[in-house]
Amino acid sequence: MLAAQPLAAQSPDPLPSWNNGQSKQAIRAFVRKISKPGTPDFVPPAQRIATFDNDGTLWGEQPFYFQFLFAVDRIKAMAAKRPEWKEKEPFASVLRGDLKAALAGGEHAILEMVMATHAGYTTDEFEVVVRDWFATAKHPTTGKLYSEMVYKPMLELLAYLRVNSFKTYIVSGGGVEFMRVFAEKVYGIPPEQVIGSSGKQALQYRDGKPIIVKLPSVDFIDDKEGKPLAIQKAIGRRPIAAFGNSDGDLQMLQWTCDTATREWAYDRASSIGRLDKGLDQAKAKGWTVVDMKNDWNRVFLFEK
Amino acid sequence: MLAAQPLAAQSPDPLPSWNNGQSKQAIRAFVRKISKPGTPDFVPPAQRIATFDNDGTLWGEQPFYFQFLFAVDRIKAMAAKRPEWKEKEPFASVLRGDLKAALAGGEHAILEMVMATHAGYTTDEFEVVVRDWFATAKHPTTGKLYSEMVYKPMLELLAYLRVNSFKTYIVSGGGVEFMRVFAEKVYGIPPEQVIGSSGKQALQYRDGKPIIVKLPSVDFIDDKEGKPLAIQKAIGRRPIAAFGNSDGDLQMLQWTCDTATREWAYDRASSIGRLDKGLDQAKAKGWTVVDMKNDWNRVFLFEK
Repeated sequence: MLAAQPLAAQSPDPLPSWNNGQSKQAIRAFVRKISKPGTPDFVPPAQRIATFDNDGTLWGEQPFYFQFLFAVDRIKAMAAKRPEWKEKEPFASVLRGDLKAALAGGEHAILEMVMATHAGYTTDEFEVVVRDWFATAKHPTTGKLYSEMVYKPMLELLAYLRVNSFKTYIVSGGGVEFMRVFAEKVYGIPPEQVIGSSGKQALQYRDGKPIIVKLPSVDFIDDKEGKPLAIQKAIGRRPIAAFGNSDGDLQMLQWTCDTATREWAYDRASSIGRLDKGLDQAKAKGWTVVDMKNDWNRVFLFEK
Repeated sequence: MLAAQPLAAQSPDPLPSWNNGQSKQAIRAFVRKISKPGTPDFVPPAQRIATFDNDGTLWGEQPFYFQFLFAVDRIKAMAAKRPEWKEKEPFASVLRGDLKAALAGGEHAILEMVMATHAGYTTDEFEVVVRDWFATAKHPTTGKLYSEMVYKPMLELLAYLRVNSFKTYIVSGGGVEFMRVFAEKVYGIPPEQVIGSSGKQALQYRDGKPIIVKLPSVDFIDDKEGKPLAIQKAIGRRPIAAFGNSDGDLQMLQWTCDTATREWAYDRASSIGRLDKGLDQAKAKGWTVVDMKNDWNRVFLFEK
């Protein structure tokens, strides 16, 4: 009796937030293709590496990168102990609530804000600070927790790939120790599968016990050509699937196996993650372009 | 009927090359302790990280580090195209077969030999070179393949931990891209769980396709305080078990969870991996010291 029922008819759609269009078909066809033992496209489970950008790919990035909004909240929380910030840019602008002015100083200003709010802690202390922020901070326009600002269709995709023996990685320009605090709970991605930008660190001893202290200088920026270099260093083999949403992900998408699937999550409204060269290459090479407006029937986790 | 038979009576010893002494008991007691749900010592499977030094811990390191012997073989193989090496130290000594003289130049000489033999390749090309060497090169005193020069008791330990849901990592001063070529086949450790020293690398394009080129300069030395820093960067949580054989592993053993097991594989005959401070700390803190002569009934894989 059981054997007479086709299995496919019983299995529910693993990607219910994806409309039944070309993108969804391409993803499912790729997973079927690499899963058939004895065929030339078969990929052994141990080699099924999938890499995902984070900002704009797994969660939102509007009106600002969420990690920048974390830095802003930290600057406000720390301001009482740093009275000099009232007169000093970019901190003065942040404290006045003018984030655009704070960002006017460009990369140098961003670095100053990140260092002031991310360095000087031990790694254990920093984890607590981020965890607390994550549990309470609200997104400025939606009023939702940041853990609810993740893309539901991408959560489904992560789970679908893992059920098919993929090892899912984040490869993001975001700070590695910032992302690790929530990646396991929110995305099901353990800390050792999170690759990101990092600051320098030092081993020190406090009361005879080793601690690692976060120093105020940049160690590595995980963007553009940094992404394949970080993948090679941390993973040591090429992904067979890569997902990004901006030109900062282009080199990562190029740095995949020849049989790989490469996907752009494309949100036309985005003014932050610019996708320009990526769309040209996608057209030329037949990569999948996911249009969030047309391919998804739901975006954020908090949407009913 | 089945339920009446105690399971333990059926399961064969997972560590047959370990004598039934204190070390083996300590390892098995630790694994039992962290595996019991509902007890204070229970560690969820996702947090069961075990880190292993490689040289002298998982395989031999006599009469020289095996990676140095790889460099020596490469210098000989490349010599025809580098006639200037006949007059230039440390290469001239290597070509005369006098390895001690080649090493007399200290760290600088070693670095020169490593750079000359490890850089200038793409990562894909280097993998082929190491793979070929591994398939054919013989150890100078035993005449065995290097893949047979691994410690059988440690292979058993790796497998035993993995069966108990541990994720096993190499954390070694050896070159990460050298070790990755054999770690999966020989130790069952996939490339993404190999942490090691590394050279700088660059992304380049050849015929429009991205390649990664190994540059002749040092990026990171994974030894002493480098080991916990690399563990924090790559894994993002503390190991609950760590295994080493020299003072270069001391900081890694300190950088473990409070409930962790820490083991020294101690070979009194070793003149390379010096274990001095480590033994003092082991005594003071109750870490397990494995004496290879007394705790193991077999050492290398090739021994019958």
